[in-house]
Amino acid sequence: MRTIRPIFRAHSRLLKGQYHSVHAFCCFLVQNLPCSRLQANTQFTVPFRTCSLSTMTADSKKPLDGKASQSNSPINTTERVKRLREIMRENGLHAYIVPSEDAHQSEYLADRDARRAFVSGFTGSAGLAVITLEQAALWTDGRYFLQASQQLDANWTLMKSGLPDVPSKEEWLVKVLPKESKVGVDPKLFTVGAARQLAEALTKEGHSLVSIHENLVDKVWGADQPSMPPHKIIVHPIAYSGKSSEEKIAALREQIEKKKTYGFIVTALDEIAWLFNLRGSDIAYNPVFFAYALVTRDEVLLYVDENKLTNEVKEHLGSTVKIRPYEAVFQDVKQFGAQKQGEKLWIDSRCSLALQDALGGSQYVSESRSPVMTAKAIKNEAELEGFRQSHIRDAAALCEYFAWLEKELVENKAALAEVEAADKLESLRRKQKDFVGLSFDTISSTGPNGAIIHYKPERETCATIQVDQLYLCDSGAQYKDGTTDVTRTLHFGTPTAEEKDAFTRVLKGHIQIDMAVFPRGTTGYLLDVLARVPLWKAGLDFRHGTGHGVGSFLNVHEGPHGIGTRIAYNDVQLEAGMTVTNEPGYYKEGSFGIRIENVLLIRDVKTPHNFGDRGYLGFEHVTLVPIQTSLVDIGLLTPEERDWLNAYHTRCWDRVHPLLQEGSDGWKWLKRHTQKI
Amino acid sequence: MRTIRPIFRAHSRLLKGQYHSVHAFCCFLVQNLPCSRLQANTQFTVPFRTCSLSTMTADSKKPLDGKASQSNSPINTTERVKRLREIMRENGLHAYIVPSEDAHQSEYLADRDARRAFVSGFTGSAGLAVITLEQAALWTDGRYFLQASQQLDANWTLMKSGLPDVPSKEEWLVKVLPKESKVGVDPKLFTVGAARQLAEALTKEGHSLVSIHENLVDKVWGADQPSMPPHKIIVHPIAYSGKSSEEKIAALREQIEKKKTYGFIVTALDEIAWLFNLRGSDIAYNPVFFAYALVTRDEVLLYVDENKLTNEVKEHLGSTVKIRPYEAVFQDVKQFGAQKQGEKLWIDSRCSLALQDALGGSQYVSESRSPVMTAKAIKNEAELEGFRQSHIRDAAALCEYFAWLEKELVENKAALAEVEAADKLESLRRKQKDFVGLSFDTISSTGPNGAIIHYKPERETCATIQVDQLYLCDSGAQYKDGTTDVTRTLHFGTPTAEEKDAFTRVLKGHIQIDMAVFPRGTTGYLLDVLARVPLWKAGLDFRHGTGHGVGSFLNVHEGPHGIGTRIAYNDVQLEAGMTVTNEPGYYKEGSFGIRIENVLLIRDVKTPHNFGDRGYLGFEHVTLVPIQTSLVDIGLLTPEERDWLNAYHTRCWDRVHPLLQEGSDGWKWLKRHTQKI
Repeated sequence: MRTIRPIFRAHSRLLKGQYHSVHAFCCFLVQNLPCSRLQANTQFTVPFRTCSLSTMTADSKKPLDGKASQSNSPINTTERVKRLREIMRENGLHAYIVPSEDAHQSEYLADRDARRAFVSGFTGSAGLAVITLEQAALWTDGRYFLQASQQLDANWTLMKSGLPDVPSKEEWLVKVLPKESKVGVDPKLFTVGAARQLAEALTKEGHSLVSIHENLVDKVWGADQPSMPPHKIIVHPIAYSGKSSEEKIAALREQIEKKKTYGFIVTALDEIAWLFNLRGSDIAYNPVFFAYALVTRDEVLLYVDENKLTNEVKEHLGSTVKIRPYEAVFQDVKQFGAQKQGEKLWIDSRCSLALQDALGGSQYVSESRSPVMTAKAIKNEAELEGFRQSHIRDAAALCEYFAWLEKELVENKAALAEVEAADKLESLRRKQKDFVGLSFDTISSTGPNGAIIHYKPERETCATIQVDQLYLCDSGAQYKDGTTDVTRTLHFGTPTAEEKDAFTRVLKGHIQIDMAVFPRGTTGYLLDVLARVPLWKAGLDFRHGTGHGVGSFLNVHEGPHGIGTRIAYNDVQLEAGMTVTNEPGYYKEGSFGIRIENVLLIRDVKTPHNFGDRGYLGFEHVTLVPIQTSLVDIGLLTPEERDWLNAYHTRCWDRVHPLLQEGSDGWKWLKRHTQKI
Repeated sequence: MRTIRPIFRAHSRLLKGQYHSVHAFCCFLVQNLPCSRLQANTQFTVPFRTCSLSTMTADSKKPLDGKASQSNSPINTTERVKRLREIMRENGLHAYIVPSEDAHQSEYLADRDARRAFVSGFTGSAGLAVITLEQAALWTDGRYFLQASQQLDANWTLMKSGLPDVPSKEEWLVKVLPKESKVGVDPKLFTVGAARQLAEALTKEGHSLVSIHENLVDKVWGADQPSMPPHKIIVHPIAYSGKSSEEKIAALREQIEKKKTYGFIVTALDEIAWLFNLRGSDIAYNPVFFAYALVTRDEVLLYVDENKLTNEVKEHLGSTVKIRPYEAVFQDVKQFGAQKQGEKLWIDSRCSLALQDALGGSQYVSESRSPVMTAKAIKNEAELEGFRQSHIRDAAALCEYFAWLEKELVENKAALAEVEAADKLESLRRKQKDFVGLSFDTISSTGPNGAIIHYKPERETCATIQVDQLYLCDSGAQYKDGTTDVTRTLHFGTPTAEEKDAFTRVLKGHIQIDMAVFPRGTTGYLLDVLARVPLWKAGLDFRHGTGHGVGSFLNVHEGPHGIGTRIAYNDVQLEAGMTVTNEPGYYKEGSFGIRIENVLLIRDVKTPHNFGDRGYLGFEHVTLVPIQTSLVDIGLLTPEERDWLNAYHTRCWDRVHPLLQEGSDGWKWLKRHTQKI
């Protein structure tokens, strides 16, 4: 739908969009690793910045030096840091902390929220800046050491998180600050938990944490700061949402009652969109809009810029939802806090310090996982059917794309840049019914670039796809009836034995997850190992989680569940109606990357027995794109795995070929790639 | 070795040995379940108490009523409870708590330590008694509801832990006690952690926890209480221990240094036996002796009854180990506490409150996992070789046993009671070189009795083994060079399709664990799922952990690691040199039980790759007893699993047949049961 195309608008001049350059895949799944594993062992490389790999030696594991593109040159931050210090002095501050997050803890940021990138010049997705009156330091993790060292100018010290002897921000502050210093933060950008931890560390050493309600970076940024996105909101119809907003609010109120609170404040943007059956386009790839919502026993308040609301939306919301200006949430919450003395408001643990402060402090809140997140994770039948249908159309586009790519590379011997190919894929998806936009930046990567888990090809500098290398493509789209996220790894020439061995092991892990049956009560933390066992047998592994939840025409990443090594996944049982990706991989640094990703629905499964009367669950795959059999070492598959692959391909053919013109390249590609092995 | 045969001495007249009646298997592995699962879903049955099952209907899930054996009749506790209350009044107490544990948190108890059984009459392994001036209550879990209801007399209220509305001991105490009550405990029998939790709950409500150093139950028991076991200690030679006591103490001192403490107090009996390369016979099945040990930077103190020490032992200990009376530990520790002001003593979290109190309180200790437990868990090459060798001999005995049993049941159509069969097995094991005794009470169980996870047949009342039922035998022995623990499930007639299906799935899980390869850093918590996946596919599962550590001529259960759903197993990485059992099962209540158990050694594994440079580990099975192939549904096995089974049987034949006389029944049985499938 064209009206929300702006979510794919060009990035702002100022930031060149680079804070988007880390694909969502990485943001979410790499974080699944226990920190110790990520930090101690991770040696990330950065994207190759030339279009040709011909100048690389075969075993080179380093990018070509001295060819950093314009976008990675440092921005001169002298003036903005100087101005920030002036304002800090005016506020009596000795330090000011600028995190990456926005007020809603969104995974992607609107341009105006890229404050840490503005003040430091470093545009990676993960990082935190601390400015004292004399020094400025930026913390980031191993994925970004090179990029940060290129982008930071002389005003900044790079703190390589996870390396030995690199202090935490708290340790550093305590060392450099004079006695009884005041450390300022914008309380809207800190969760209650993060603020608590920081305050404890500072007060223990005699310093104090000070909430400054006006953001000091915004004051420095001034008129150049992009404005709040003005985009219109649309209604997400009941045919796709499957449940009315009224029903969702009624169920939420039951939870509020059970929790013995007077209400719940919704702060995550995708939760608000889900609760009201609305969608927006304020943030790239995520069809959400800036808002807060407060649901109490007898009121529903939606805090949103009224200019975003069309008549249709107003009608949809009806008279029970009270519309209030976006920023009014703080004064309203203050009033609630004052009126409801003795009662508590339920907040999610990602709720901002600013809201808790407005309420009067932590004694007025009950903090635990958002009931909206929990409810949203379990899809109803309409949403599940939307997943199935949108994935068939998405598969048709991918078949056309891979057919085109194969023809261009093999028959036409075309020199195709990674981004050029990604553009073609987008154009083919765009033709599909109910396409709205991409669900994240396409990872289109050849050879060694595929081994960079957070790779995003840059238009000006990306590599040419090589016919004799593995090609990894991780992409997805937003359709009105569902969100897709699919990775396939292909080879257009003759793969090496090593590539086939690794591909087959990744596939075995993928199949083991797909075929798993498990009793209710099982978590994704426990299932994760099934994806790794076939790799482990050869001494291989992958440094990211196995899967994440997927929204229904919403964020491509959503919680609270997932399949992975992150211990938090052990707190959430997998339940019927949840969605989860299945995406094991293997990455050989400097050589190739492999990932095979489907979206799965969790379903009740009929088993011959039902030990413990718990009921058993299993997966239904909705992604229907062939898995390249010429990359499979068939001898490594069990008969059951072979049957799985043949059945999967039969299903792909049956469901997808009706959408492809008989005899077309896409149709022929699908037919060829779904032959039995 | 005959000198330590007393560990299999007859049980005391008073208790009829019933506190041993819960086999070790259950004590350790069933506890691996998260409490919620155990408590909410568990419906345990109790052993059938008649020798024939002919009076049972086919679908009966209850034992025959009204036939409780003498041992399950209540003991009249009126006098002892009355006397206890008198002593409580003398001490100004309003309540007194009697736990199951001894002063060393041993899994098995010496007779004199069965205080809870003495005071309440309830002899199950798990339970806790609380006596107030008016009431007396006993808490136990679902495994023992029936037994406790039979054994408790009218003085007692049974508290069925885990059932809805059953209060915890703290909740109950708070409800029944008058204001500002004093609740007494013997601080030797409470760990620092348990005491802390109890004290918090009581003081919050205005009561107080009082340490009474003389045990009040002992005062009631008086002259009838069995005395401290007087058995002699023996030296565990270096050929089996592989490392001298001096080396072990030196390594411990390094840990003590690193931990910035002045010493470590060893309280677990198996840790003391391991540290000094000594073995004893004070507790059934566990070759340990009562002692404490204190290792400081410059002293080694062993607190033990000097009468237990032979000249050989004294010579072995040499002059560096100072021998002190067992009970002197408390006064010595008091002195240390006073001398070392400002320094801390390292204690294990299972250390008793009495020791911490003697030291001066929690401010003088550093509490974390015993470094001796951690060191003991990793076997050296001599110990590993001892495991291999003792398991070959143990397998020879088992082959002879199963051959005998088959002949008796099938050819001779003998009526064999479960215990009679177990006796035969013990007699065959006894003939093996370096046999010392059993490592736990043999589970010899026919049909429905096999489904009772903690089943122990009673001599007078047990069932007759039926040729048309599954027979589950879980047994093990102590040899001078190693400890064994093996379960096999056999059918001497024609198994049903359901039995074969379940058996094959248990076997598949067993093989998946056995074949697993995993990177260093992996825990047994993560591997557990591999044992369950084949069962889950049919809606089956088992309610215990998959495996526990095994001592080297020491306790058959040892930590800190294990394979199971107990979250504590996620805190301990599996390491090369550890031992662990692999014992998935399936239990159909009222019908049959299946378990297949081998002991595994964790070894470094050479993999084609070494992703992450972490190194990869795998298992070596040392148990060499055939797995009955007539119970296997071969069609359910993958080719790889079939190969595993054939290779396993080849290995059994190759290693075990040299110990069997050619042409003997055992030899023929082994040959027949190791044929390729």
